[in-house]
Formats: sequence, structure tokens, C-alpha cells
Amino acid sequence: MRIVDIKEMSVGISSSMRNAVIDFSEMTVSVVAMVSDAVVDGEPLVGYGFNSNGRYAPSEVIRRRLAPRVLAADPDELLDPAGLLEPAQVAAAAMRNEKPGGHGERAVAAGVLDMAAWDLRAKLENRPLWRTIADRVGNDDARPAVPVYAAGGYYHPRGGTSALVDELSGYLALGYTDVKMKIGGADLATDVARIEAVLAALPEGGTLAVDANGRFDLRRAVEVGGALESYDLRWYEEPCDPLDYAAMAALADVYEGPLATGENLLSSQDALNLLRHGGMRPGHDVLQMDPVLSYGLVDYLRTARHLTRHGWSLGDCWPHGGHQFNLHIAAGLGLGGIESYPGLFEPFGGFADDEPVHEGIVTVGDGPGIGFERAARLEPVLDKVRTS
Amino acid sequence: MRIVDIKEMSVGISSSMRNAVIDFSEMTVSVVAMVSDAVVDGEPLVGYGFNSNGRYAPSEVIRRRLAPRVLAADPDELLDPAGLLEPAQVAAAAMRNEKPGGHGERAVAAGVLDMAAWDLRAKLENRPLWRTIADRVGNDDARPAVPVYAAGGYYHPRGGTSALVDELSGYLALGYTDVKMKIGGADLATDVARIEAVLAALPEGGTLAVDANGRFDLRRAVEVGGALESYDLRWYEEPCDPLDYAAMAALADVYEGPLATGENLLSSQDALNLLRHGGMRPGHDVLQMDPVLSYGLVDYLRTARHLTRHGWSLGDCWPHGGHQFNLHIAAGLGLGGIESYPGLFEPFGGFADDEPVHEGIVTVGDGPGIGFERAARLEPVLDKVRTS
Repeated sequence: MRIVDIKEMSVGISSSMRNAVIDFSEMTVSVVAMVSDAVVDGEPLVGYGFNSNGRYAPSEVIRRRLAPRVLAADPDELLDPAGLLEPAQVAAAAMRNEKPGGHGERAVAAGVLDMAAWDLRAKLENRPLWRTIADRVGNDDARPAVPVYAAGGYYHPRGGTSALVDELSGYLALGYTDVKMKIGGADLATDVARIEAVLAALPEGGTLAVDANGRFDLRRAVEVGGALESYDLRWYEEPCDPLDYAAMAALADVYEGPLATGENLLSSQDALNLLRHGGMRPGHDVLQMDPVLSYGLVDYLRTARHLTRHGWSLGDCWPHGGHQFNLHIAAGLGLGGIESYPGLFEPFGGFADDEPVHEGIVTVGDGPGIGFERAARLEPVLDKVRTS
Repeated sequence: MRIVDIKEMSVGISSSMRNAVIDFSEMTVSVVAMVSDAVVDGEPLVGYGFNSNGRYAPSEVIRRRLAPRVLAADPDELLDPAGLLEPAQVAAAAMRNEKPGGHGERAVAAGVLDMAAWDLRAKLENRPLWRTIADRVGNDDARPAVPVYAAGGYYHPRGGTSALVDELSGYLALGYTDVKMKIGGADLATDVARIEAVLAALPEGGTLAVDANGRFDLRRAVEVGGALESYDLRWYEEPCDPLDYAAMAALADVYEGPLATGENLLSSQDALNLLRHGGMRPGHDVLQMDPVLSYGLVDYLRTARHLTRHGWSLGDCWPHGGHQFNLHIAAGLGLGGIESYPGLFEPFGGFADDEPVHEGIVTVGDGPGIGFERAARLEPVLDKVRTS
């Protein structure tokens, strides 16, 4: 088989939400259709990919650099010995003539292509991607059931704390048990009141995590941590700049509760630096690197090896993102769980129509690939990209 | 005054050169014209910027994200109390709605806009940029004389070692005394023979540095370092992945000669991590962060503060890049010197026509701004961008 075309389109995910750092009203997503010459039921097999929210569509990097290199590669170079598409080889071709370091838009672009390559690979094998992944890593215990938590709790332009409680209560009504809210976009007293209001609305056994989106300097992160410590939060996320490993290490020395970070580490090398220099505590803290923002599953498997060598369990990983690709990765590798954004970042956030949440668990639906075809909301945009 | 337009164009810098990692035949550069409503001699004042070689044109990031935000900002927000354009305010406007971390194409795009903003600022002050910079940091010792070394020594597709020696000898004939060559693109014995041939061609007092472009793993970096140690090289550059601080620290433990790195650290936070975790030796090793690839001079001034706090001198800094902006930065801040690429990456590499090299020193020419207008080779491309 060979890849005959790679189509890309930038699509807006307009939203009125904002976190402590950015608003999402101008956010875009790159959508890719990787078209093969393999035919099933008279139709060519197509792999689809798109980037996680929070990073803008890296259209130019895909269109001018990465995709042309994949299409220019010797098709046999992209296959494994069995003649199936090998995503690691696709990544190697895409990254020719790129310097080391500088993990930004390029890491996202590579992640989008990686998602499409894995979707296509699993479709060629005619099985769900999580089984392909579990086989790849020899995970015999893999099961298609993935813990999820509902991320949201943004600063609503109107409605304040009661709108926040309504929003998060809505997630609980959908079947979630654990939720996450933003902090750092208001003064500490306001944030503490918001936290207390949400905790009062949580059912028994439900947990709350808080996310500062890298807003604080160390001094402020320690101060806020002191105010948070009595609330038994699930975790305190991204207090400081995501690349300030020393700040994280200093905070981990004084904050007893679990810390979380990783969504803005866009490569396995950055993840390794966090493990080496960030002072985080295996089995206690939480790692949230998002494969789709960081060169894809191909590079996330490198991160997984770093984790194991540094005493971490893959159960400590809860990737950022909230999309179906991470659902398969979590099931195949046995991650702790994944983030979910119920009703946000549509149509890209969320899972297939046959993948509802029940008591905080999503059961991965059956069918080949990642299963985007079983999400009705995605059909129009994927059709548009494929036929563009 | 206000910025009335920001024009951007992607331009190829086709070259047959290659280093250990990439070839440059498809390399592009973003060129920006920042047009103001200030008029001198009947013409509007325009600031120009372009990115350093090695990172592709980040056109989309400039056109869709950073430049529209600058143009949408309240014009008064971009000025200092004296009513002059303040590059730090331009940078703040450009980076609205951007998440922390992910320093890649965006860092380059911000650097291009930063160059244009400083060029415009110094033109508004009607003086050379290096004086504006020296005033900003209170550097009373600033002088418009900057040490430069000639970088090159690529793997020529044809011609081998004798072509290499010819190339580097050509730089000496131009007035350079110190040169740098690539290693790691051939086996060690070949590289050692190349090094010996170049050393034999150097005049007394001239020095040779070698650059591995981040190609080696630690084991190989140590092995190569062992082979290099007897040659009294000026420095051994980027042996390992530029973000692998622990590898650099391990190498600094065993390699006695000067090490150099930094061109692929695209933010002051990454630079700070190198200082904290890289084990490098102030006064002995060399730091090469390139302002234009890393959010501009605005962020480089943060890096400079980190350096001072960590016991480094600005004399330890030799930025990557080889263009006129870095010449002014080096003169204004009192850096050790800068890289130069004689005849390469035209028309963007090199200095003004009245800035020849003499005994390894470039004397910055007089005139407002960065002085691109005094480089005839740049005129056609800058005109094209300004009138586009």
C-alpha cells in the first residue's frame, strides 16, 4: 500500500471559554486526511488526524514541510516488514531536514500526521487502534475501558460562580464523577470561593482538580498552594511556567498534595527533563503530556520508556486533549485515564456516539481505527477535508 | 506614531550546503516590513526583520496570529512614555492568547517582528540601534566593534577535504582569523583528518571551532570529545540534543576544552534551564542563543539577566545567526562576539557594505536603525516586501 495524498484544512473551534491565560474565540485546528490506495468496499482507506485544543492549526508546517516529505518518500520506506504502514517511518520521513530543538508548532503538526497514520494503520489491520497499540507494547492486560474526568470550569464571561457550578454539575449528570476547574484568572479569595462552591456540589467519591495554566511565578504558586492544601484536591495543575522544572521541584518540596503538569511539554526530551529536574513524585503526581501536541504516539512511546526508567507507572499519566485518539492510547498502554471536555471544542472534542461516559469510565467502541466514523458530529468536517 | 501595516513574505535561501543534520536547499526566511506613519524626507519610516537561517519561514504564525494582534492593539499601548515605539509592548501585544511553552515556530516569528520593531525604534531615534541598546541597559562601555568568526566548513557535496580547506581559507582571506567547521556528518577518522587539514591551514593566532549540530548521543559525544581534546579547539559545539541538559552536564564533567551550545534554545526559559541543569562553566564555555530565533531582543534581555545571576559574563555569549541585528546587539550589550556566514544564506547573511571584516572585527557602520539600507544586496528584497 501507499499514501497517495495528504489533505489539510484549518477549521475554527470558536468558543466563548477562557482560562487563566488565553481565550479560545480565535482557536483553530488542523484536520488532515491521509488517503491510501488500499480499498475496502470500493472506497479508499483514509486515516484522519486533528490537533488538540490550545495550540493553533499548524497548517503551514503540515502543508509546506511535513506532508510533502511523506509524499515524496519511497513508499516502501513507510512500511513495516509485513507491508503495513509504519507510523514511526512516516514520522521519520516527515522530520527530514528539521533541526533538533524548537518543539512548537512543528510538534503539533507531526502529532496531527501521527494520528492520521495510526488511524490508517489500524484500519488496514481492520481492528480498533487500542488493540494495535497493546500488541505493539506487549500489554496483555489492555482493556477498552478508560477513566475520564471532565475538564472545564472556565471563567464564564457572565454568570460567575453559579454558572461554574451549573457547568460542572452538568458534567456529573452526564456520567462523570471527577471534574477540573480553572484557577488563577481571579484573585485568590474568589478562586477559593469558587473551589468551595464546586466541592459542595460534588457527590460522594467525586474529586476536583484545579488548573492554573502556568500563570504563577514560584512565590505565588507556593502561596496559592498553601490556600489549596486543606481541600484534598485531586491535583494542582501547571502552577508555573511548564518548562520551569526548578520551580516545580521547589513547589513539590512544600506542597503535599498531588501536582500535575505536562500538556505544554511538546516532546519526549522535554518530558525527560521534567522527570530529571522537576522533582515530581512517581505514584503521587500526575503527568499530562498530550501525544497529539508532542510529535504523536511515536514520540509518546519514547516518553513511556523514559517514565518506566525513572520509576513512574503509566498509570500516573492522564493526557490532556479530550479526543478519541487519546482514548485508544490510554486503553492500549494502560494509562491512568484521560481528560475530557464535554461539549467543548466541538466537533473535535469528545468520543464516538457509542462511547458514553458511565461512572467516570468510557468504554471504547468497536470498529476499525480510531472510530471517528462513529461520531456523527465529525462526519461533515472529515468529508469536507477528504474531498477538498 | 503608530504602526499602520505589517507586511510579510517568505523568501527562499537556496544553498547546496549541508551540516550533520539538514541540508539547506529548501530553507526559507520570513521577511517583514513594519510600516509606521512617521515620515522622514517624505517617506514613511519602515522597520525590517527576517529570521536567522536554520528555521523555516514562520509566515503563517506572523500573518494569522502575531501581526494581526499588533495591528489590532491600541496604538498608544505600543509606545513608551516618550511616545516612541516600545518593542517590549509590541511583543506583549503579539503574544496575546498564546499558551506558555511550545517555543518553536512562534519564537522565530516573534523574533522577526522584534527585529523590525527595534529597527523602527532606532530609526525613530535617528541613531544606530547599538546605541539605543547600550542606553537601554546602561552600558557606557559600548563600542561599535564586534569580534566575528566565520562559520562554514559544511560537507560539500563534491570536493571533500580540499574543498573544505579552500572554503575556510577563503574566509581568512576576507579578514577573519577564527573559523568553525561541521563535524558528525562523517565517521570520526574522516572528521579528524578534516580538522587536521584545517588546522594546518590556519595562520598563527587563528582558532578553529567544531560543530556537531546536536547529532550525537552522550556515549558518542564523549568518544568524539576524547578524539578532539588534543587539538586545542576554540570550542566543541552542540554535541548532543540541545535540550538534553543532563547530557551536557555529563560531558562538561569529562571534556576539558570549551563547550558551546544554545542556537536551538528558543526562549529565555530554555536558556535558564541550560544554566541551571547543563553543568556549563562560566568564563570557559560559550553560549550561542540567537535573539532572532528566540522571541527577539526583548526576551534576550531576560536571558542576559539570567546569565548575570548565574555567574556568567555577557562576554561568554556568541550568538548564532550571522546578520546585522546581532551585530548591533553584540555591540550594545558587549557580547563576546557573533557568528558570521561569509557569502552564505544570501541576501540575509552578512553585514552592511561599509562593514568589512578586519582582523576578525567588524566595525558597525553609522546611520539610523540596523542599517539594512546600507547593504545593496538586501535592497531588492526589502523593496519587494515593503511594496507588496
